[in-house]
Amino acid sequence: MKKRNFIVLGGDKRNLELVNLLWGDGHNVRNLVETDIQTIDLEDYEIIIGPLPFSHDNETINAPFHSQELFIEEIFKGMKDGQLFIAGKIEEEHILKAKDYKINIIDYFNREEMQVLNAIPTAEGAIQLAMEYLPITIHGSNALVLGFGRIGKVLANMLNGIGANVYVLARNYGDIAWIENYKYSPVLFKELSKYLLKVDVIFNTIPSIVLGEEMLVYLNKQSLIIDLASKLGGIDFNAAKGLGINTIHALGLPGKYAPISAAKIIKETIYNIIEERGI
Amino acid sequence: MKKRNFIVLGGDKRNLELVNLLWGDGHNVRNLVETDIQTIDLEDYEIIIGPLPFSHDNETINAPFHSQELFIEEIFKGMKDGQLFIAGKIEEEHILKAKDYKINIIDYFNREEMQVLNAIPTAEGAIQLAMEYLPITIHGSNALVLGFGRIGKVLANMLNGIGANVYVLARNYGDIAWIENYKYSPVLFKELSKYLLKVDVIFNTIPSIVLGEEMLVYLNKQSLIIDLASKLGGIDFNAAKGLGINTIHALGLPGKYAPISAAKIIKETIYNIIEERGI
Amino acid sequence: MKKRNFIVLGGDKRNLELVNLLWGDGHNVRNLVETDIQTIDLEDYEIIIGPLPFSHDNETINAPFHSQELFIEEIFKGMKDGQLFIAGKIEEEHILKAKDYKINIIDYFNREEMQVLNAIPTAEGAIQLAMEYLPITIHGSNALVLGFGRIGKVLANMLNGIGANVYVLARNYGDIAWIENYKYSPVLFKELSKYLLKVDVIFNTIPSIVLGEEMLVYLNKQSLIIDLASKLGGIDFNAAKGLGINTIHALGLPGKYAPISAAKIIKETIYNIIEERGI
Amino acid sequence: MKKRNFIVLGGDKRNLELVNLLWGDGHNVRNLVETDIQTIDLEDYEIIIGPLPFSHDNETINAPFHSQELFIEEIFKGMKDGQLFIAGKIEEEHILKAKDYKINIIDYFNREEMQVLNAIPTAEGAIQLAMEYLPITIHGSNALVLGFGRIGKVLANMLNGIGANVYVLARNYGDIAWIENYKYSPVLFKELSKYLLKVDVIFNTIPSIVLGEEMLVYLNKQSLIIDLASKLGGIDFNAAKGLGINTIHALGLPGKYAPISAAKIIKETIYNIIEERGI
Repeated sequence: MKKRNFIVLGGDKRNLELVNLLWGDGHNVRNLVETDIQTIDLEDYEIIIGPLPFSHDNETINAPFHSQELFIEEIFKGMKDGQLFIAGKIEEEHILKAKDYKINIIDYFNREEMQVLNAIPTAEGAIQLAMEYLPITIHGSNALVLGFGRIGKVLANMLNGIGANVYVLARNYGDIAWIENYKYSPVLFKELSKYLLKVDVIFNTIPSIVLGEEMLVYLNKQSLIIDLASKLGGIDFNAAKGLGINTIHALGLPGKYAPISAAKIIKETIYNIIEERGI
Repeated sequence: MKKRNFIVLGGDKRNLELVNLLWGDGHNVRNLVETDIQTIDLEDYEIIIGPLPFSHDNETINAPFHSQELFIEEIFKGMKDGQLFIAGKIEEEHILKAKDYKINIIDYFNREEMQVLNAIPTAEGAIQLAMEYLPITIHGSNALVLGFGRIGKVLANMLNGIGANVYVLARNYGDIAWIENYKYSPVLFKELSKYLLKVDVIFNTIPSIVLGEEMLVYLNKQSLIIDLASKLGGIDFNAAKGLGINTIHALGLPGKYAPISAAKIIKETIYNIIEERGI
Repeated sequence: MKKRNFIVLGGDKRNLELVNLLWGDGHNVRNLVETDIQTIDLEDYEIIIGPLPFSHDNETINAPFHSQELFIEEIFKGMKDGQLFIAGKIEEEHILKAKDYKINIIDYFNREEMQVLNAIPTAEGAIQLAMEYLPITIHGSNALVLGFGRIGKVLANMLNGIGANVYVLARNYGDIAWIENYKYSPVLFKELSKYLLKVDVIFNTIPSIVLGEEMLVYLNKQSLIIDLASKLGGIDFNAAKGLGINTIHALGLPGKYAPISAAKIIKETIYNIIEERGI
Repeated sequence: MKKRNFIVLGGDKRNLELVNLLWGDGHNVRNLVETDIQTIDLEDYEIIIGPLPFSHDNETINAPFHSQELFIEEIFKGMKDGQLFIAGKIEEEHILKAKDYKINIIDYFNREEMQVLNAIPTAEGAIQLAMEYLPITIHGSNALVLGFGRIGKVLANMLNGIGANVYVLARNYGDIAWIENYKYSPVLFKELSKYLLKVDVIFNTIPSIVLGEEMLVYLNKQSLIIDLASKLGGIDFNAAKGLGINTIHALGLPGKYAPISAAKIIKETIYNIIEERGI
């Protein structure tokens, strides 16, 4: 890829690493963290990279390492027509606003490769948590994965690779077939309670309540639930607490446990966007 | 599943095995192969199972083991309103005709679980062919899979399991991400020729020409191409012949190399259909 | 196994869990931790289980959870002729002394199944440590295993299962053959420095200096060395410190990170000893 | 490796391929097959490579592709003091005779790397045979491996990689531990009959009768036994025949099914011998 002129705004450890990686690849990169926004002319940069997620408050850009607040409106105002702005998990309203300013705004988070690659540090972070909390090895344990989307698939594969007995909740006959192909054990919803009795660790990836109180009662007290589903998750946490069951609602694992890998994934995705658009 | 009353019409070795399997599960099964169609009243059977594929000539049911011809029109005429007829790969016109006769006709072949499970004997049959033709082991060989749909995924997983160096042609960034997740090597189309130079065996699953003469020239003469794509396949077979490259257009592998497994898959799919419809 | 009459003396968390597991299997178990040794008549117990390791000071039994000191000599004196005493890592002098007292003393630690099964929590603990320290995922990382004995084999298998690029230092042609069979990359000693340049994490299992200063200089500063070799380990820790390379000398991982699994392994080994001897 | 001056005598397809491979690596190679032994002066060659096995009749060198007989005694007579002669499976008496002639004779077959690498085409050939004979897929089948030496280990690993349910007969607690580590199912000898009831394919590697008539009766008639053990094998073939059980005594698989891979293995081993001796 030819030499580019980037500026990176906001973001957590991943964006700090992203700056290093872009430098390492020979690009010009301005890291706004070290600079006063007032002294910057955004129009000078070919590509502006924002954070993941884009904003927590709908007013400012998510920028925990900046001493200043970065108001979304002001950033957009400072950009020129057709300029490229790339960030992750941008709310619809900000995309519309950016378009009003004639900004070429792109959300990298919904791209398939980003989702798949990001599932790797997510799964590995979840396994690390399980290793830390459980007094048994993952090898030889009974591990149940709820959901067989991207994270579920990557997680089942890794758990199997470490030597767990992998069970996957299957919601249709197609899922069952894939689960059997990979030699995991499919669990039908109607049989779930029976399996809960012998499970050591559960990884949930389904963003709606799968384990309510009526299910949680089947779990033994030594088991652990790691919920990877965003927002409210898939566990009735209050019920679990009442029953004395250990739960972890683990979000943002890539940024927390593998920021360099997470940054590499973002970088690759940004490169793909640039290449695809022939920019 | 409660005891059912089946009749099985036509089909290859898989349908012969299917009769045995249904018997083994305790159902009543009439195998038409041994009987004169004239002496049978189709209306007596709860579920009529046809072959895979349904017909080769658009007039008769595909029935290589029958001494009689089974005319599609006559079979449909002999059935009653709402009676269940299940077969695989039924052409649209026959589905429409069956509906005219108010027959409840279902094609099991397009179901996801059938496609996924059938990919297993297909992949394994392809590997058997490669083992038979190649003077080298699959373990340690450079194996290239063209296409990353169901068969491509199952094949790549199995080849990796035997110890091949697995390369997969990736057609988009999402594919690349999955291929990297499973630790195969992704090959971009633009780099294909470079990889062809060192490949020992190619498995094609893409039903349009991927390896035309301009690509085939890169292959060494000891390599082997196994084309699993239906109809015309993905190889320019004439060009390959001219270049002295070994090719096998391998179709219908499940029925040929693992008829009992193939029959089990059909049986499971039929059971799923029955259960899903609450019949 | 028929009901037995055990007493468990000393030991770390593993022996506490061992008591629970033996109870769970229906045996009588006295846990000395809760009792005054003076009130106990050791001769009443069929099988006396000591700790792993047996002693740290050559005078007392290793018993961190006891309020009293348990003098080896006194324990042996309190036993009767032919009574069974089973513990792990017992120094030769104590075995001889026990034999003087006509005690049937057995070290479970040298048994092959103990060594192999114990390699599992050791390897998994090492991987957990690597996950905790590294800002990258193990998946996709370059992981080098020094030594291809039991721990090396188990570790390479698990790292491969998670998706690392696994390199193994091979010390002879037989090792190279096994490493190739499992699809890891063999590294010859003479090529080691070249590989060190690109390695992210090193796991050492060789109990003599493999990585002295002249080798450590090839490592990049972001890499991590986890030394699993007992006693002095296989790393020149001072040189590593001077060079700013992160090292962890990780000993006793099974007891620290997976005490229940470790206790199960001890229990199985003790059962095997009992069964083998027809006791 | 520097350029050498080889002559290759006798042998099956593997030695023909070996000639090609040595040429391909840039060595001088004389292939005796095409030449009259009388016209050759063996003393002119640095290294003389014989066949695997060395002799079938104790008088002549195993040379199926030669039109002449190659008498062992004459070959040895034609060599000079200290000349290097490398072959495989040389009977003790011929080694002694060669030493009488002051020949530097080396058997490559007993070397660990040869045995391990040769287990790969052996295992893969056995799997090919199973695929050819069984009407079911190896994926999902119950496959029992008798013996957990080199071939047993490689075979279990490959069967697992294809998706079989792998059972391994374990003869001691150490074996059980390794089998559990790799997530196969250990089978104790005392439980063997129970497992035979559900097994689809058995691979024997133990060179003494494991499956006598009293065991064979437990097998169902659709199952297949592939015996890889040399000489008399581990199956009572007469009893199996009487019971209608399919058996294959499969010997020499590397040379038959993967001669080029087998030749590569021989070549590598010969190179290792040369390098080790600093010749």
